[in-house]
Amino acid sequence: MQDAAFLTTATRHGGGLLKAAAACPDAPRPWLDLSTGINPEPWRGPRAAEAELNRLPDPGALVALEAVAASAFGCAPDRMAATAGAEAAIRLLPLLLGVRSVEIVGPTYGAHAESWRAAGVATRLIAADQAAASQAGVLVIVNPNNPDGRLTRRADLIAMARARSAVGRWLVVDESFIECAPDDSVSDVVEPGLIVLRSFGKFYGLAGVRLGFMLAAPDLVQHLRALLGDWPVGADALTMGRGAYADLDWRARTERALAERTDRLDDLLAEAGFQIVGGTSLFRMTRTPHAARWFQHLCEAGILTRPFAHTPDGLRFGVPTERDFPRLQRALEAFA
Amino acid sequence: MQDAAFLTTATRHGGGLLKAAAACPDAPRPWLDLSTGINPEPWRGPRAAEAELNRLPDPGALVALEAVAASAFGCAPDRMAATAGAEAAIRLLPLLLGVRSVEIVGPTYGAHAESWRAAGVATRLIAADQAAASQAGVLVIVNPNNPDGRLTRRADLIAMARARSAVGRWLVVDESFIECAPDDSVSDVVEPGLIVLRSFGKFYGLAGVRLGFMLAAPDLVQHLRALLGDWPVGADALTMGRGAYADLDWRARTERALAERTDRLDDLLAEAGFQIVGGTSLFRMTRTPHAARWFQHLCEAGILTRPFAHTPDGLRFGVPTERDFPRLQRALEAFA
Repeated sequence: MQDAAFLTTATRHGGGLLKAAAACPDAPRPWLDLSTGINPEPWRGPRAAEAELNRLPDPGALVALEAVAASAFGCAPDRMAATAGAEAAIRLLPLLLGVRSVEIVGPTYGAHAESWRAAGVATRLIAADQAAASQAGVLVIVNPNNPDGRLTRRADLIAMARARSAVGRWLVVDESFIECAPDDSVSDVVEPGLIVLRSFGKFYGLAGVRLGFMLAAPDLVQHLRALLGDWPVGADALTMGRGAYADLDWRARTERALAERTDRLDDLLAEAGFQIVGGTSLFRMTRTPHAARWFQHLCEAGILTRPFAHTPDGLRFGVPTERDFPRLQRALEAFA
Repeated sequence: MQDAAFLTTATRHGGGLLKAAAACPDAPRPWLDLSTGINPEPWRGPRAAEAELNRLPDPGALVALEAVAASAFGCAPDRMAATAGAEAAIRLLPLLLGVRSVEIVGPTYGAHAESWRAAGVATRLIAADQAAASQAGVLVIVNPNNPDGRLTRRADLIAMARARSAVGRWLVVDESFIECAPDDSVSDVVEPGLIVLRSFGKFYGLAGVRLGFMLAAPDLVQHLRALLGDWPVGADALTMGRGAYADLDWRARTERALAERTDRLDDLLAEAGFQIVGGTSLFRMTRTPHAARWFQHLCEAGILTRPFAHTPDGLRFGVPTERDFPRLQRALEAFA
């Protein structure tokens, strides 16, 4: 690895293969990207027709997408709005909720804290066992959590949402990886102070089309729509989102396939000396005293993983496809 | 036309073919959509590869897109940020500029007033000859204007931007149709109070991919980036935007072709009794005492045009492709 600054970059998000390739010019191509929690076996179905790219997205197509997604999530269509990725909703939350303090159960996905801090709101990371007692205006819980997969049970979330709503406080549940733990979703729960974020790109493996949803009380949904304008998502998001959320067979098959590959990955990683500390069926969080050396070794084999500034002995692995297991196995076995 | 409410819907934006088709079930298919100012002969080039849909957009790809677009606009890359359509920037402007009053030269594209009013900012439409004297915190000019094509000269815009900057006031120039009048662009002008909005979808005919830009002072651009998050646009926008803005031959050819088709459309419309009151080479604004009857007659022929609530005797026509001229001509000749 020629570029020492690259490790710092890699701790911000997963992805960024262009920078990885520049930092490790001798690594074998193509790169195997295990740095994100995005399903490497995406839902495959028609993209938007060329004629759809030529037009403004039809308002009727947005209504149709939201109806199919609402049905998949178990919520009413007037309680949700599509956004260009869950990220877009995360960034706009401070504008929608006029609060002075936020507590985020962490460590977790960094954009939450970044977004509230950029808006000048007092923001504090708290431990999971402090959540129920939080008195902040907004409490954010990522469920299951990224990167460690920590699960907050549905019953506990409902109790928190109810208690917070009663005193005018918000609970934001980021369900970006909830397809890996569907029984604990609160997307169907109606509480005035509960906001749920959903991501399309991760489980369906289509992060490049930018599609997510905010689920909330109808007045808040209307406010979000006003901020987003009339065409919040593009043509591919409308077409592929509608196709994918309606494909319940694919969802069931994919849940099973990911669970199987996760078991296989855990075996490989344990064999190589990693301690598996958690995760979901889309990514596994590990600990090893040699995390920085492992990261570099795998980069040199053209495999990008995810290090963390807040957990220097941690390394996260996305779950590979069947055909990429042998390459990962060889690289793991070659570590000296 | 079975649905009297449809005329009201159609005055909001162009597009909305699904509603038009529902209101006129007997109209011949496919519909000919002349209700927008989107080029019906789009730039044609590769879309994002399927592998790109599977990944988060690479930060390097965003940098590359912005560099190519900045070069096409004549501005520095640190003075611009890509957005999911010009509309996304329009909706976020009230959050970026903390002002108490806005004046908008109008009638014009309705989303400007809508966005500021939704944010609770005092918003007034003013006539073009009142613009130079405006003392509002923000002055918005759409150039060339939609729907009438009114052009504000570059020298006048520069003078206004300079005078307003000197007293801490903003000038927002919406250049969504500026490719039709490139000599009057101020995208290359550096003034602290000047903000320019650009649209990809209209001239390049790719409104469905959702791509636009805000050009402004670097600190404001950074603030916008924080609101948008790390993946402001999708994979197709990154790939097609980069390809199209680099294709200067296509731009030159398209400028000429649109100008020729505009002349031909003007002749047809004049023949049918319309008064051409202005426009650009992507749309023509007409007046006729029979605007509502014309709108309905054309709908029944499967041709969607654009009526206006603020100008009941106005009707706007998008410039058709070569192959659609005969159909439009037949429909114009069949009006009784």
